Amino acid sequence: MEHAKKEPVTLINIFEVPVGAEHNFVEWWNKSSEVLMKEPGFIDAKLHRSLKAGSPFQFINIAHWETAEALDLARAKHSDVLRSLSKGKGHPALYEVVSRYA
Amino acid sequence: MEHAKKEPVTLINIFEVPVGAEHNFVEWWNKSSEVLMKEPGFIDAKLHRSLKAGSPFQFINIAHWETAEALDLARAKHSDVLRSLSKGKGHPALYEVVSRYA
Repeated sequence: MEHAKKEPVTLINIFEVPVGAEHNFVEWWNKSSEVLMKEPGFIDAKLHRSLKAGSPFQFINIAHWETAEALDLARAKHSDVLRSLSKGKGHPALYEVVSRYA
Repeated sequence: MEHAKKEPVTLINIFEVPVGAEHNFVEWWNKSSEVLMKEPGFIDAKLHRSLKAGSPFQFINIAHWETAEALDLARAKHSDVLRSLSKGKGHPALYEVVSRYA
């Protein structure tokens, strides 16, 4: 599979957040997004919360960036904010859309 | 937290797919989506594939339905197609957007 270098990428970050730490997590996510959105290449970000409390993946961030390089630069620049999440763990990975129906 | 009964819901289905079974998985997903999209309440569905082979969550489906009830009815009606995935396992859950930046 080949990827055009300048194609937008989808970042999907699946978070495990302990019960009781949800409020702090959302505050951390908002604080992080406020700095990241000002960086070149940011397109959008949406934080999804599970409708069922206690499900394994309580929060999922779905964000779009113009390039993987722009995302890497922004994350490196703001690593202090990103590392300040005290309770919870993210599993970030880059994705492309391979099929769609609408 | 309260949810308006008729608010659209986001289905996020995280799939573990064994290496080598990716092609069959995408065929299964397309076949399933072709029947589900004809059911009442379907809005859209996008299959995301990880840019890195062998990452834990190779495929993630992000779909929108008008209501959780419509999704449940469609999944029950087409359970034969949905169960026909031979290699791979989904972790579906319903989500709402709690924060967004753009």
